[in-house]
Amino acid sequence: MSPLHPFDPVTPGEIQLAVKILQNAFPGVSLRYKKIDIQEPAKKDVIPFIEAERLRQPLPPKPARLLQVLFHRLDTGAFFKGLLNAETRSVAYMKELPKDIQGPVDVDEMIDIEQLCLNHPAVQAEVAKLQLPPGMTVCNDPWIYGSDDPNESRRLFQCYMYIIALDHPQNNHYSLPCRFSPVFDGITRELVRIDYLPAGPDTMTAETQPWKPVETIQYAHDLLQEPLRTDLKPYIVQQPEGPSFNAQGNAVSWQKWNFRVGYNNREGLVLYNITYDGRNTFYRLSMSEMTVPYGDPRAPFHRKQAFDVGDVGFGITANQLSLGCDCLGHIKYFDGYRADSNGNPIQLKNVICLHEQDNGLQHKHTNYRSGAATVVRNRQLVVQMICTVANYEYIFAFIFDQAANIEVEVRATGILSTVPFDNEKFGSTVPWGTNVGPGVMAPYHQHMFSLRMDPALDGFNNTVYYEDSVPMPEDDNNPYGVGYTTEQTVLKTSGSAKTNIERHRVFKIRNDNIINPITYKPIAYKLQTAPSQMLLAGKNSFGVRRAEFATQPIWVTKYRDDELFAAGEFTNQSKESQGVEKWAKRNDSVENEDLVLWHTFGLTHNPRIEDFPVMPMEKVSVMLRPDGFFTKNPALDVPASTQSFNKSTLHPEPAACCAGDRNVKL
Amino acid sequence: MSPLHPFDPVTPGEIQLAVKILQNAFPGVSLRYKKIDIQEPAKKDVIPFIEAERLRQPLPPKPARLLQVLFHRLDTGAFFKGLLNAETRSVAYMKELPKDIQGPVDVDEMIDIEQLCLNHPAVQAEVAKLQLPPGMTVCNDPWIYGSDDPNESRRLFQCYMYIIALDHPQNNHYSLPCRFSPVFDGITRELVRIDYLPAGPDTMTAETQPWKPVETIQYAHDLLQEPLRTDLKPYIVQQPEGPSFNAQGNAVSWQKWNFRVGYNNREGLVLYNITYDGRNTFYRLSMSEMTVPYGDPRAPFHRKQAFDVGDVGFGITANQLSLGCDCLGHIKYFDGYRADSNGNPIQLKNVICLHEQDNGLQHKHTNYRSGAATVVRNRQLVVQMICTVANYEYIFAFIFDQAANIEVEVRATGILSTVPFDNEKFGSTVPWGTNVGPGVMAPYHQHMFSLRMDPALDGFNNTVYYEDSVPMPEDDNNPYGVGYTTEQTVLKTSGSAKTNIERHRVFKIRNDNIINPITYKPIAYKLQTAPSQMLLAGKNSFGVRRAEFATQPIWVTKYRDDELFAAGEFTNQSKESQGVEKWAKRNDSVENEDLVLWHTFGLTHNPRIEDFPVMPMEKVSVMLRPDGFFTKNPALDVPASTQSFNKSTLHPEPAACCAGDRNVKL
Repeated sequence: MSPLHPFDPVTPGEIQLAVKILQNAFPGVSLRYKKIDIQEPAKKDVIPFIEAERLRQPLPPKPARLLQVLFHRLDTGAFFKGLLNAETRSVAYMKELPKDIQGPVDVDEMIDIEQLCLNHPAVQAEVAKLQLPPGMTVCNDPWIYGSDDPNESRRLFQCYMYIIALDHPQNNHYSLPCRFSPVFDGITRELVRIDYLPAGPDTMTAETQPWKPVETIQYAHDLLQEPLRTDLKPYIVQQPEGPSFNAQGNAVSWQKWNFRVGYNNREGLVLYNITYDGRNTFYRLSMSEMTVPYGDPRAPFHRKQAFDVGDVGFGITANQLSLGCDCLGHIKYFDGYRADSNGNPIQLKNVICLHEQDNGLQHKHTNYRSGAATVVRNRQLVVQMICTVANYEYIFAFIFDQAANIEVEVRATGILSTVPFDNEKFGSTVPWGTNVGPGVMAPYHQHMFSLRMDPALDGFNNTVYYEDSVPMPEDDNNPYGVGYTTEQTVLKTSGSAKTNIERHRVFKIRNDNIINPITYKPIAYKLQTAPSQMLLAGKNSFGVRRAEFATQPIWVTKYRDDELFAAGEFTNQSKESQGVEKWAKRNDSVENEDLVLWHTFGLTHNPRIEDFPVMPMEKVSVMLRPDGFFTKNPALDVPASTQSFNKSTLHPEPAACCAGDRNVKL
Repeated sequence: MSPLHPFDPVTPGEIQLAVKILQNAFPGVSLRYKKIDIQEPAKKDVIPFIEAERLRQPLPPKPARLLQVLFHRLDTGAFFKGLLNAETRSVAYMKELPKDIQGPVDVDEMIDIEQLCLNHPAVQAEVAKLQLPPGMTVCNDPWIYGSDDPNESRRLFQCYMYIIALDHPQNNHYSLPCRFSPVFDGITRELVRIDYLPAGPDTMTAETQPWKPVETIQYAHDLLQEPLRTDLKPYIVQQPEGPSFNAQGNAVSWQKWNFRVGYNNREGLVLYNITYDGRNTFYRLSMSEMTVPYGDPRAPFHRKQAFDVGDVGFGITANQLSLGCDCLGHIKYFDGYRADSNGNPIQLKNVICLHEQDNGLQHKHTNYRSGAATVVRNRQLVVQMICTVANYEYIFAFIFDQAANIEVEVRATGILSTVPFDNEKFGSTVPWGTNVGPGVMAPYHQHMFSLRMDPALDGFNNTVYYEDSVPMPEDDNNPYGVGYTTEQTVLKTSGSAKTNIERHRVFKIRNDNIINPITYKPIAYKLQTAPSQMLLAGKNSFGVRRAEFATQPIWVTKYRDDELFAAGEFTNQSKESQGVEKWAKRNDSVENEDLVLWHTFGLTHNPRIEDFPVMPMEKVSVMLRPDGFFTKNPALDVPASTQSFNKSTLHPEPAACCAGDRNVKL
């Protein structure tokens, strides 16, 4: 039996084993590997094991370690999906996928297409027309192609080209977008065509012209005109007794919480088997999908719609974090592995980090009669991953606290995706974007996230309902007209629901089988949603058809293994999604059942010029809070906040000679 | 000329001076002081002074220091409002107020009423009927009376009574509410009546019965049954080189920000004259009002509607903060002063604190080709005040960052206002509250805040508009159906507006006279609202008539001196508000004018049992962010986040003997 835990990420040995199994299965055939990753065990197979762990009982046998693979045969080009049993060292399942299914982009492919584009004579001829000054070159970001043709089945890449004004590792090429964009077939490696880009309010394009020099808006510190600030003093977090967490392998315990940190190439960070004080809360939490459709209607920009989980993978793009840069305090890192195109395991060092933070006060009360105060700080445990998806950065954090809350925080930063815009020639502005520099515009877009929550509140059968706050009718029971009450609506069958600020709608997950002895209501958690504008694209657009999950803020489905990704398994160049909206349509009973709750939230991001050349983070946050899960505040036993523990310092009072001089100009 | 700055808070000398001026004005008459505080200078009088400060020009004369006073004549009981000139030592204005105007509750009055109630024979007789065990006593929280009678003009207090089970400075009496509530006249000091409280789903009351012992739900650490957590390790913030801020008197500078910390008895913390990099942003920011109406329809609970700013005052109730308890790091404190009922100045030490905090990453980008990353942390400056309003606590923080954002964060904590509830006798639950312990219920309620923003973006004449994100029509300009754009609506005349999630409505403040050279649009800030359910009470209820501000999330009024408080100057027992809704009705032009923007936001708080006996904080946050105010990210010049600066520590890898043992149960 494997020494690994069923929820442990794939190991380098397992990647090598998968390659061996596949080489045996396809003797003499060269394979190009796209993905070799862990396949999670079926829930029913793993529950007995994790329940025995939780209850500290003798452990039953673990389910077999399974590996999922995606690969191409290099002889036929055929694309395969397979499932391997690492213990029997055999193929459990293998399928050749239809021609119009495109797998995600992988790292080697991205580099390859980039070079293919730069080295292509037709592209080089186009670049020559720019007549760039000596020392200036071009680069390209190969974009997943998007969809606008139901009959397209080639694997295409749209290469957006930029001028590199300076040979510097942090030169901001996004400041100087070119007006042409080659399209390549990723399989045949042929140039399909060169798209010329509009640079005004209409779709008019032009032959490539010599480049008119403009300033590059830089973000790198050594490329700035202005000096750096010199008045920021160090702020050091010290934990002289070490952290309050305990990590053994991927199992983490902290302040009554226990969970396992998972990692896979697609979602990156996943949390499994979250318990609080020995009670089950969530079986699995992850960021299941994200789509970023752009609002610029002009071809070829209309195809810009990234699915950063399905098309690329947060695991693949997760930053290898550095001590002291991304977090403060005492930091624990977790690594991941991926396979390269030859099947070699590649270590992804420090892709997940774990640290504590202080988040101000958690609770305080002063008895005004006695002056006696109870002050308790809000210590948190942060599990974090930062992903760089070409120009953009996302910072994902699952934040646990001592009052049994789980916050899911997303920060968007990085560089806006830009397009050329000839202000001088075409006029001042467009109605779907913001001018962010000379000759460069950042189109409006949306970031739509799908948070997948697999609850297990004191058991694996739960119920989702929403509760609205509504005025009481003005009758004998409410003679003064001030009464209000709540209305509950249970989601009995799988489907969707809307948020509602006007009714203060709150979504709750409860276990109908366990009644709180004080409130007389089922134990529950509430989901504090992030009510957001849903997709702005038209109903029949590919933008919506590919991302139905982003048309409703709440979905509830009955649990099935392998239904993990809100827009379906294969999103790259998808014509329509095969995800949560399809599963919801089964009309399964989800009352007191094993269910999954999905929350779509996001940012309608109409760029500010202040978001360029690198964006001050924009934050969205969702919370899971106990609501009748306990019989009182679960953080009561957190020690008080005291000076002897916290060791703050007092700001000195000004010297006497200055004290009276209140009018000194700072 | 006074050495004080026009925005400095009242000094003890000024309080003493005010008493002298009033004694001279009313020779031989005994006065009872309710309030002696600073009166802000008229805006037009102070602008030349603060503009000269900003532009480092020679300072013109300061406007005279004015003091506002509220007091009663003890001979006639008449209630007066006055304005005194501290420089000419004379009365500038004096008015006897109508009989039905009630001033706020003051500290001495609160203590007085509490004692009056406890010592009253009728109350003592009622308490005797409880037949409390030896050592147990009662206490009472005098509540502002609220309104339910248009003809009521007495100054009334509703005393809610609780059983004190333990002689301990942090005994939680809110766990044991009594079923009777005496009402007193605060002027005549007479017992008006004893209200008997319902304790079931209907309005039935009962004669006071012997108390049936139940457990008190305690929060104080030494009263808990369970032991405290022992696994929380110290987390120390060190600033070895001191803070990055500079404070001289009440003038603060930090990271290109300059502002003055103000304090008054009513609002507590006020910020004045906020500039960034020498540019005006906001003339004044404060929490203007808050109302907390309860949804319990049963008399006398229907009158429970606190106005914690107008009825009491955040300045008066602000906690005197302790080093190392309420904040971490290097802390600067500000004091305040109030007058007691005899006119003596009372120092309120450490009512406002100032400190820096780290809020994770502000921006990051990794160039995936070179691997070179720019990482900048989000250092913040927090100006904070914590108010204890009897049972509840509010934590208010104005948070400045290096990207020119201002966040206004409110945390609600403290103890729920509870009512008796006889679960055993009357059944399990009520539809307007949550059982939080044996015999005790916490009714549903709302916390509605009014944030008052007086903008001065590059000048004192500004314009408010909102911008909605809307799909483009599907026509030739949008052939693929993915285009979207924005629609702007200018608030040309004073009035109100609604938030709108479905349209991603964003409110902006701009200066029409100053055009951004890159975006070609007026420089602006946006208000990231906290869209909230507005008042649930019926339109004609006193709950709404007294708090019209809380019926609309956005108000814009033309600036007038003295229009500072959203529900009007006198809220205690008000019959209808005289606030923002009245001023908005003037239909003043507010386009490119000196305007005020008011944002109503809040919490519909249907208590969780986890909110008892002391509530894990619930947070609401509003942000002011530059939007076209600069020509690029203003935080570009913030130094990078590096290990040499941050000095984080690495979590040690487990020893070899454990490393392979991934299945250890934690």
